[in-house]
Amino acid sequence: MQRTEIATLGEFGLIEHITRNFQLKNDSSIKGIGDDAAILSYNDKPVLVTSDLLLEGIHFDLMYVPLKHLGYKAAVVNFSDIYAMNGYPKQITVSLGVSRRFSVEDMEELYSGIKLACDKYGVDLVGGDTSASVTGLTIGITCIGEGEKGKIPGRNGAKNTDLICVSGDLGAAYMGLLLLEREKRIFSGNEGIQPDFSGKEYIIERQLKPEARKDIVESLERINVVPTAMIDISDGLSSELLHISKQSNVGCRIYEDRIPVDFQTAVMAEEFNMNVTTVALNGGEDYELLFTVPLEMNDVFQNLPGIKVIGHITDASLGSRLITRDGQEVELRAQGWNSLK
Amino acid sequence: MQRTEIATLGEFGLIEHITRNFQLKNDSSIKGIGDDAAILSYNDKPVLVTSDLLLEGIHFDLMYVPLKHLGYKAAVVNFSDIYAMNGYPKQITVSLGVSRRFSVEDMEELYSGIKLACDKYGVDLVGGDTSASVTGLTIGITCIGEGEKGKIPGRNGAKNTDLICVSGDLGAAYMGLLLLEREKRIFSGNEGIQPDFSGKEYIIERQLKPEARKDIVESLERINVVPTAMIDISDGLSSELLHISKQSNVGCRIYEDRIPVDFQTAVMAEEFNMNVTTVALNGGEDYELLFTVPLEMNDVFQNLPGIKVIGHITDASLGSRLITRDGQEVELRAQGWNSLK
Repeated sequence: MQRTEIATLGEFGLIEHITRNFQLKNDSSIKGIGDDAAILSYNDKPVLVTSDLLLEGIHFDLMYVPLKHLGYKAAVVNFSDIYAMNGYPKQITVSLGVSRRFSVEDMEELYSGIKLACDKYGVDLVGGDTSASVTGLTIGITCIGEGEKGKIPGRNGAKNTDLICVSGDLGAAYMGLLLLEREKRIFSGNEGIQPDFSGKEYIIERQLKPEARKDIVESLERINVVPTAMIDISDGLSSELLHISKQSNVGCRIYEDRIPVDFQTAVMAEEFNMNVTTVALNGGEDYELLFTVPLEMNDVFQNLPGIKVIGHITDASLGSRLITRDGQEVELRAQGWNSLK
Repeated sequence: MQRTEIATLGEFGLIEHITRNFQLKNDSSIKGIGDDAAILSYNDKPVLVTSDLLLEGIHFDLMYVPLKHLGYKAAVVNFSDIYAMNGYPKQITVSLGVSRRFSVEDMEELYSGIKLACDKYGVDLVGGDTSASVTGLTIGITCIGEGEKGKIPGRNGAKNTDLICVSGDLGAAYMGLLLLEREKRIFSGNEGIQPDFSGKEYIIERQLKPEARKDIVESLERINVVPTAMIDISDGLSSELLHISKQSNVGCRIYEDRIPVDFQTAVMAEEFNMNVTTVALNGGEDYELLFTVPLEMNDVFQNLPGIKVIGHITDASLGSRLITRDGQEVELRAQGWNSLK
């Protein structure tokens, strides 16, 4: 029998491949696989659904991630998927697989983080199950949210000349991860040394306790704008922009000097001898929102707090490129994090 | 720091303990943890949500479970939770964690089983994600279903004198499991021997390819009856009956000679030198429906195909008991399967 390694397809390729024969049958199923969340409709009301599976040793390392932070982050990254659909998360279910290594107190810590996130974002924990696991900790989260009819941007609605906007700043969570990994190695070698994170609090916090951009969705509602396309940045700006380009059948130009980067991110990149733009383009887990709006909105979005206009959509034939500070055009590539490659 | 082993609480105890401080905040959250599925309400329409996590080595053994069957069962057991709320499953999301041991073809097999179940039960696959895993296969499934306002039986509505009804027959899936485990041991010792399952097809099928009782929910709809309480039997009749008794604050009497058992189940129990009633009471994974209806319905339910009236609800003070064939009363205890004990 033939054996094709999963690595040859990667995550997106595998999902596309194994779900290609599934067609939607029910009136209540509006949009299935291929966006941040599925769109259902019950009594004419859009209901958004997104699921995530977090596995110890792949998605998190308990050597430097406190369980409370893990719970908080696990919840927030799912909320982020709902905000990326211009909706509001309302419920989550949490399923746990736990090995004997963990105690009741550990689970209390994990759930105190989940509760903190739920309270802050106004979400209810409504279900889930708990079972034993042979190895480590597994967390399955599903988030259900509320959308507004006619106001749910897909990844496929970006149009030529649209502005490309991004919230917050990029690359910090990835720098936080590399810093934590480095300190873990130092610590493992010499247990007497305590890690020194002073001046690096922001990048650590971005990695361990990310926030979802509810405020941006609220801002968009306030100015009554529905993006033509929207996605949250979990795998890196390049990767997400290419999703929009591909699904909208367009190209894009973004400008290196417009990509928002925090000072601590830049300092850390230099310390690691990395190009800060590469970090901002490909570092994952930012959980910022990336979206496109019509060109006429330029005045509005140039002045919206927390938003940066970083480029524009082009015809598909022009490809997806970065314009560097010295004016060169570089093809964007998805080098974001992919656990299956 | 104090360390309490999770085993001291068990699955239900752990969930109760760690979620006791979570209160529902949103209008769209009607009922949270504590039933087969959560009840949400969007535009006044009940939306049912249930989640499950299946872990290799805990919930399934790929030595004797073909991947296609695993996919089918993983989907069906979630549909069963929605039927237990007198609703119809409409969508599922599937999240996978896969180690390098698995190939693309393996995932095709798994998804062909999921597709078969979705097609048979009229459910759409709408989302999920896939990632690498350090060890084995992990499957997270969330199922979303449609309920009817005012027609969702909880576990807490059973009343004194109500009839206790059960669909199909019990204990077969557990006998199928023990048989497969035995054949696996024999096979491991001597690879030349092929297992002989003739005359045991039914119990094998009940273990490997269970069905959910959509037909019973349709029957109830046809005769326009909403059970006062309903639950699906995943952990064994005793355990589920005790959930209803506890949450409805009632007692119950069930009659040994009325518990439905298939001939193959009885034969297999004898072969294993086990008491067949113990098997029917405590063997898990039947996925039959257990429900209560008012006593006046006696004539209707005594004659409903696929349904057996096995006893009745009593006042809480009388406890939950089995009346044996020789007229003795035995306290029901939850000895069902619990991965955390």
